[in-house]
Amino acid sequence: MKFTANSKEFEKLLAKVIPAAPQRTPMQILENFLFTVEGGSLTVMATDLEISLSAAMDVGADEDASFAVPAKLLHDFVRTLGDASIEFSTTSDDRLRLKTDFGEYAIAYQPPDEFPKAPERENDGEIVLDGKRLRRAFEKTSFAISREAMRPAMTGELVELSDEGMRFVATDGLRLARYHDPNVTFDGARQLVIPEKAVVALQKLVGDGEAKMTFGETIVSFDLGDLTMTSRLIKHRYPDYNSVIPLANENEMTIKRSELSATVKRMSLFSSSSFQQVRLTIDKDNLKVSARDQDKGSNAEENITCAYNGDPMEIGFNSGYLADALSHFDADEATFKMHSPTKAAIIVPADPDAEGAEDLLMLLMPMRLNEDR
Amino acid sequence: MKFTANSKEFEKLLAKVIPAAPQRTPMQILENFLFTVEGGSLTVMATDLEISLSAAMDVGADEDASFAVPAKLLHDFVRTLGDASIEFSTTSDDRLRLKTDFGEYAIAYQPPDEFPKAPERENDGEIVLDGKRLRRAFEKTSFAISREAMRPAMTGELVELSDEGMRFVATDGLRLARYHDPNVTFDGARQLVIPEKAVVALQKLVGDGEAKMTFGETIVSFDLGDLTMTSRLIKHRYPDYNSVIPLANENEMTIKRSELSATVKRMSLFSSSSFQQVRLTIDKDNLKVSARDQDKGSNAEENITCAYNGDPMEIGFNSGYLADALSHFDADEATFKMHSPTKAAIIVPADPDAEGAEDLLMLLMPMRLNEDR
Repeated sequence: MKFTANSKEFEKLLAKVIPAAPQRTPMQILENFLFTVEGGSLTVMATDLEISLSAAMDVGADEDASFAVPAKLLHDFVRTLGDASIEFSTTSDDRLRLKTDFGEYAIAYQPPDEFPKAPERENDGEIVLDGKRLRRAFEKTSFAISREAMRPAMTGELVELSDEGMRFVATDGLRLARYHDPNVTFDGARQLVIPEKAVVALQKLVGDGEAKMTFGETIVSFDLGDLTMTSRLIKHRYPDYNSVIPLANENEMTIKRSELSATVKRMSLFSSSSFQQVRLTIDKDNLKVSARDQDKGSNAEENITCAYNGDPMEIGFNSGYLADALSHFDADEATFKMHSPTKAAIIVPADPDAEGAEDLLMLLMPMRLNEDR
Repeated sequence: MKFTANSKEFEKLLAKVIPAAPQRTPMQILENFLFTVEGGSLTVMATDLEISLSAAMDVGADEDASFAVPAKLLHDFVRTLGDASIEFSTTSDDRLRLKTDFGEYAIAYQPPDEFPKAPERENDGEIVLDGKRLRRAFEKTSFAISREAMRPAMTGELVELSDEGMRFVATDGLRLARYHDPNVTFDGARQLVIPEKAVVALQKLVGDGEAKMTFGETIVSFDLGDLTMTSRLIKHRYPDYNSVIPLANENEMTIKRSELSATVKRMSLFSSSSFQQVRLTIDKDNLKVSARDQDKGSNAEENITCAYNGDPMEIGFNSGYLADALSHFDADEATFKMHSPTKAAIIVPADPDAEGAEDLLMLLMPMRLNEDR
């Protein structure tokens, strides 16, 4: 088998697929690309058994072939070549031979049947998405995905299809992020729980063009122009997130988001590393944000103007979670909707009707206030 | 004690000194800055007991004071402030109080006598250096400093003063880099072995202006404008490096440096990770560079034009060491001077008389060639 390719184009092809190849795994074969040459075209595939990526390129090969080659070596090598023509061929001693104007290289390959099957496409339905908006929905929510394997469903992001639009939800039990895109409706109702690894990959790989999502019971695929990603779905049922979002949080505080964000970041320096608590002391038009670290003997407080409609309240949050939530809004002003210092608070853009406003909601469980002050 | 400072200027002061403060150390007090307020001026000092950095700023304080404050907290905090006026004061309960227009902060401090004494200046002589050239000399050589504690002298860089100029030498026993600056002469002869940590810090801290070096038996200091660095010297005697540099390596090969550099980087991908060997097969006008990894079944070779005056030779080098050496030259062409495949090779700029040519020499011990080919 023989074909020729330009090193830069070949590098682009490999770069698309390599994110799925694990770098260190007990199952060494996964550190390879699967090359499939068929009808003059080369398809490169990589998988970690959870997700798989594949992309193809027309190379005008003279015959069909299939084999597995070390992904990192090949990718690193091609990147050093600059702009060169590479002649690929397979040898009788199971090597992939590469030839350029200045050198010759050989890499041992393994037979294709050693390479595990990638998750196979399923098709119960498909939906065409705007790439930019899909990326955005993941960016605004995926930070809240749980890293704890204890509750498997929460280690993925919920993508919920319905005739009301598409909802993206992530939660780790202490905080929740929900993004609603009303533009993409689906005839019926469907919940897909996409593993975090796939979500992270999609944030990098989805372009600005169309992304076609095809889903089944256990598999979801994304066709992204010249790249296809397939992922297993998490089979566990996602918790009923609607039941934890309070509907009647009557105490509303509106505040300049960037100002509070900067304050919370400063406070996190002064809060104890074990509690990481910031305290919000809210009055009619003033929010006092404070933190202390009893062990280190440090403390801090700042005052910010706010607009608040309730009785004075003191409520504590994890400073990292609060900073995270605020940093995922674009709106200039955010509204905190609270009921009491022990009930979930929600944060939304202050003006849902503003131009470009998005339907984004963050939920934060408060922390019990330290008594040492 | 009270003074006021602009946050940006104060941040600059701390940023200069903080590189000397260890971030994690069993001796917790070292994670602090020592603040000394005297005659209206604030001196900030940090040390890890090996090197110390100190810088001062006029703050118009109302009285003298001295205390130790957590370096990372204070530096991180000041960086979040943007451009603000900070009012500093000490409180009766041993806290440093900071006040801005929008907030109040307090950080517990420790008494100054808990803070260890920094290495104290010694003065057997001083020499004024050009900052740019000093930085350059370290950049060209320090990569070869040994990381192995077994031979303590080699964990530092030798700075050798004499009436012939200043020599900078680093070696780990398998390679050596020597830089000679003929412009800085010293009446007498002196060897200083500067610890790697100090060399690394100097590469970052030395500016383009003058750097005054003051040295004694055990301590060297650098006055860098508004910053002073003091370092312990390594007491062990530096090996007699001149005795290992061969004078009569009669086989000379001259080659385009960037071309060989790119080739060696590619070869390092194909060489076995345990041996990391590249093989140079040298003939009159052709250099073949090759590598192989028996275990992985990969191999590679490239041919480069060279000018060589000796009998055909095969010689092996560690690919990482060879790439390192080549990447520290600026010259377009490099000359390898060799005697045999088992004796030290040296690499120098091909044309020592070219404009801007530097007196830089790399020595590389060859590797025994693998027999498996």
